[in-house]
Amino acid sequence: MRSVTSLDATEIDAIIDALTFDDRGLVPAIATQWDTGEVLMMAWMNADSIRETLATRRAVYWSRSRNELWRKGDTSGHTQKVMRFQADCDADTILLGVEQVGAACHLNTRTCWDADPLAVAFTDEA
Amino acid sequence: MRSVTSLDATEIDAIIDALTFDDRGLVPAIATQWDTGEVLMMAWMNADSIRETLATRRAVYWSRSRNELWRKGDTSGHTQKVMRFQADCDADTILLGVEQVGAACHLNTRTCWDADPLAVAFTDEA
Repeated sequence: MRSVTSLDATEIDAIIDALTFDDRGLVPAIATQWDTGEVLMMAWMNADSIRETLATRRAVYWSRSRNELWRKGDTSGHTQKVMRFQADCDADTILLGVEQVGAACHLNTRTCWDADPLAVAFTDEA
Repeated sequence: MRSVTSLDATEIDAIIDALTFDDRGLVPAIATQWDTGEVLMMAWMNADSIRETLATRRAVYWSRSRNELWRKGDTSGHTQKVMRFQADCDADTILLGVEQVGAACHLNTRTCWDADPLAVAFTDEA
């Protein structure tokens, strides 16, 4: 993985050009806590949100419900500083490593998988 | 999280009924190595693939390109034994904890984020 202190507009455009967006112009983005790998949340990005994310190093998503850029933490203060940005083998799913401030989830839990009443863990029989 | 040795059809239907599928009848599913939390891959599931996944404890996805159930490992042998199944706060994204056999990625790498030529890590300036 390339280590950089920042990316210029040309480098950011090269990353965006290499991605495959769906028919809505979106890619799913999985946000993890960069140093522990903990999966925090999944959201969507379009080209503009990726451009702003990489330029500012603050995670910016695309809100499908509000149909606008969603600068994570604007309301909650729970921002995400981007430490790593990776695309998967098909260049259609982003993996972000972030420094999460406070709760990642709008329910005020650390991750978006902390409050599922139907979650199951299989206990293998001896 | 509930610990179970298996789920019956009624319990599986309750989980599926609680999920919110997109207009294609799909939800994204993030597969992680259950004991380390390593993010392995992202794929899609529909109700049928979730039903089979929870009944057999073998990860089954929906292939959007082939438009059919994708029993992970049928071709590669790289199966995923499901240890945990969780839905997120909006019940529209699955987090799977699996025991991954071999490479999760069709490129034969451990994860789908091991070979991105454009991946960047930001090095914070001192």
